[in-house]
Amino acid sequence: MCRWAAYIGTPIFIEELMFDPCHSLIKQCKQAEECKTAINADGFGLAWYLEKAEPGLYRDVYPAWSDPNLKSVATQIRSGLFLAHVRASTGSAISRNNCHPFAVENWSFMHNGQMGGFESFRKKADMLISDELYQFRKGATDSEVLFLLAMGNGLRGNPKQALIRAVYELQHMSAVYGAGPAMRLSAAFSDGNTLYAVRYASDNHAPSLYYRRNSSGSGWEVVSEPLDLHKDDWKEVQNGELCCFNQNEVLIEEFSVE
Amino acid sequence: MCRWAAYIGTPIFIEELMFDPCHSLIKQCKQAEECKTAINADGFGLAWYLEKAEPGLYRDVYPAWSDPNLKSVATQIRSGLFLAHVRASTGSAISRNNCHPFAVENWSFMHNGQMGGFESFRKKADMLISDELYQFRKGATDSEVLFLLAMGNGLRGNPKQALIRAVYELQHMSAVYGAGPAMRLSAAFSDGNTLYAVRYASDNHAPSLYYRRNSSGSGWEVVSEPLDLHKDDWKEVQNGELCCFNQNEVLIEEFSVE
Amino acid sequence: MCRWAAYIGTPIFIEELMFDPCHSLIKQCKQAEECKTAINADGFGLAWYLEKAEPGLYRDVYPAWSDPNLKSVATQIRSGLFLAHVRASTGSAISRNNCHPFAVENWSFMHNGQMGGFESFRKKADMLISDELYQFRKGATDSEVLFLLAMGNGLRGNPKQALIRAVYELQHMSAVYGAGPAMRLSAAFSDGNTLYAVRYASDNHAPSLYYRRNSSGSGWEVVSEPLDLHKDDWKEVQNGELCCFNQNEVLIEEFSVE
Amino acid sequence: MCRWAAYIGTPIFIEELMFDPCHSLIKQCKQAEECKTAINADGFGLAWYLEKAEPGLYRDVYPAWSDPNLKSVATQIRSGLFLAHVRASTGSAISRNNCHPFAVENWSFMHNGQMGGFESFRKKADMLISDELYQFRKGATDSEVLFLLAMGNGLRGNPKQALIRAVYELQHMSAVYGAGPAMRLSAAFSDGNTLYAVRYASDNHAPSLYYRRNSSGSGWEVVSEPLDLHKDDWKEVQNGELCCFNQNEVLIEEFSVE
Repeated sequence: MCRWAAYIGTPIFIEELMFDPCHSLIKQCKQAEECKTAINADGFGLAWYLEKAEPGLYRDVYPAWSDPNLKSVATQIRSGLFLAHVRASTGSAISRNNCHPFAVENWSFMHNGQMGGFESFRKKADMLISDELYQFRKGATDSEVLFLLAMGNGLRGNPKQALIRAVYELQHMSAVYGAGPAMRLSAAFSDGNTLYAVRYASDNHAPSLYYRRNSSGSGWEVVSEPLDLHKDDWKEVQNGELCCFNQNEVLIEEFSVE
Repeated sequence: MCRWAAYIGTPIFIEELMFDPCHSLIKQCKQAEECKTAINADGFGLAWYLEKAEPGLYRDVYPAWSDPNLKSVATQIRSGLFLAHVRASTGSAISRNNCHPFAVENWSFMHNGQMGGFESFRKKADMLISDELYQFRKGATDSEVLFLLAMGNGLRGNPKQALIRAVYELQHMSAVYGAGPAMRLSAAFSDGNTLYAVRYASDNHAPSLYYRRNSSGSGWEVVSEPLDLHKDDWKEVQNGELCCFNQNEVLIEEFSVE
Repeated sequence: MCRWAAYIGTPIFIEELMFDPCHSLIKQCKQAEECKTAINADGFGLAWYLEKAEPGLYRDVYPAWSDPNLKSVATQIRSGLFLAHVRASTGSAISRNNCHPFAVENWSFMHNGQMGGFESFRKKADMLISDELYQFRKGATDSEVLFLLAMGNGLRGNPKQALIRAVYELQHMSAVYGAGPAMRLSAAFSDGNTLYAVRYASDNHAPSLYYRRNSSGSGWEVVSEPLDLHKDDWKEVQNGELCCFNQNEVLIEEFSVE
Repeated sequence: MCRWAAYIGTPIFIEELMFDPCHSLIKQCKQAEECKTAINADGFGLAWYLEKAEPGLYRDVYPAWSDPNLKSVATQIRSGLFLAHVRASTGSAISRNNCHPFAVENWSFMHNGQMGGFESFRKKADMLISDELYQFRKGATDSEVLFLLAMGNGLRGNPKQALIRAVYELQHMSAVYGAGPAMRLSAAFSDGNTLYAVRYASDNHAPSLYYRRNSSGSGWEVVSEPLDLHKDDWKEVQNGELCCFNQNEVLIEEFSVE
């Protein structure tokens, strides 16, 4: 499994979300509370939006807690929209291209979850990636495939439908060729304007997902698990919900995969 | 491009081939002479056979000249069959899984060359990999695909025919979907008993390949470029030749791709 | 803190100690039982003796559990004397030169413990290193200093006295310039013939240290914590004891620091 | 040797200096023209000033040309004052703490040059570092020592005198304990407001140093070698000169070491 955290709102220093809270993403590297794996030390990544359409992307294979470069980038960069992730590998190699977030053009995507028996149908999954997008298939994770399938399905035009279809395709493959549970996911993605977060599982065990308006009121914090343990201001996203955050509002829609 | 060197014979310390000669593979990282790229600093790798059927495999993304771990391994390990490679990327990412040699079971494979416009048909190439072998497709190089196609074509049973067929398949793809030159390669591979080396190009420009009986007479040195510059005891392999080395003999066969 | 394991005896594959046991050193990276830090993922290292006087040395900054290079080296190399270590940093940077074991000529050394307030007197400690040995001071750990001071004190001639004196020097510095507890250590070191292990603390809390004759009877396993949990064949070394192992025997001496 | 480039002026994207020019710092990794080493692939580093007093610092051990993280950071961050460096080691290990720039509080420092026979007097040099600053001595380079000695000599109060004294101390040590040439350097450093650059050698062979007002007129480019080859608008700094740049002006002073 993995842990992640994202922010949209008035620009803040990335460290304010990633490092400073008492149960920050960095703490969750060693002691995640609502995750199958307490330890998430198989790499990390950061995607942040500033002036350009494409996000910056910084990913590496070390545990996030000890990387001075990450600390420096997070301490210095103020951004109004960013995605941060710490990884626990579910089988694929420890390499930068297997770390999240993934980025294509102005889109970024990160994921926590599993697709049962993925390695058994990875080839079939890879084959579903469109010819135009295959150049972006650089690693071997299920997460990267999910993202590229959603891009190919029209993430730019209709994010919800595009992702529903991608989830359906992979869930179906898992059911036929893989192993249960077919699909469990919480994911966050963005086009640089809106931050999306989704929680879904083919069974009853969707990975955790929460959000809240941050304490200063400057924006939304969207997280795998609360950055301060068990405080009442965190709202839990339900299994089968997609949240669309802009600077000030959130719209919650049903995310239903037949 | 890249540079490589291999050995088969009575066991020697790996450093005797990789580090010690005056124009060793390590020197060729900075100053290759017969290569498009003088600098080969996008990673390195070593596969060596000892007691087990599968080779040891040590690959990393640093320039080979400065890695103390590589020096230690090469200094300490005495092997009768090993493959060593230093990489100059032709486009795919710098990551361990894109470094050579590649290894599957008891087979190891390394490569220097190019398949014109590979990124244009990488998806088609990946799709040719058999279902059983797809689990070993971990990176994004043309080299890894060539190896896995050859494995799927029966490298174990008939190495020459298996590789000819794999080269043909990719050369054809390059001609149809890619860009010229379609195929230029020098490669070395082994099952742990025999060392194979091949030189081939679809045009007249096959990457260089040489071999000789080493100075102590203990075995064969098979190299991209001579480890001591322009000495007469190096024999040049011709375009369209496959060499099969065992401890004491070499058999040279025609390697003809229609 | 850190965890370590060492072996001396008839040559075995390094993996038999480092990877295979049910509570192997690799498992202790994530779940150490007798250690202040359950997680030891700030790097690892291996020193092994084969044909040469100097050991091979392989150290890197990744968590040991996910490094395929380490797995390969441990799987392939059979050695009759080796030291393996996984690190949890007590303050100094994550870098190869701060990983254990350290090696100078034919000596290797690894350590688990602390010297209270070391960063306060690091300069003074560095100044104690002899001029001849300062070239080997490459990092910033207390462990490396302890080793180099012992070397300078005559580790080659009288290991026990040399180390006692080095421990005394640093313990005294900690008492005067640092902070309590002044000195807690378990360490293993070797000249390529004998394996030494010592357990000592200036208070009552010496880091754990055990040894046993391995199940096949081929040699001694000397460890921070038992490789199978709480089995009766592990003997605990007491605070203030130095063990000297050769292939078949162990001599235990008092290790007393005034 | 090494190569470096710095900027002060109206904020620009870091890539505009580091990546875009036809003979950018990235190109100089493989093909430096005015340097003993054409190849500078033993790591890189970037220090940049934004909102905080301390600079951001991003250093790594890979060749700069292939690191996607560096590309991302340089592409995304707009800064009015930054220092960038690519390294060719003169002996010390390849590690992040041996890469430039170095940073202490609001000061950053990078260097190209040599102090003859440094390893022979590294201990003496380390011992000159003040007790208060020794915590910042993390690596083993001559460059880091020079910086820390200058800091200790009052870089904050009188940069020129502080650095002159540090250069004198180390040059003297080299003359007595090391080997010729005693001191050759070009260096750049900053407190976050002013950019300093100095060129000096104890003989006639000071490493190259140039500067110019950039083409848009937004600020000063200060470099080891011109970013476009041999264009007339680059002014060469003389041996024994210290330049002090602010946003719009440059003051050149004599840098005389007795």
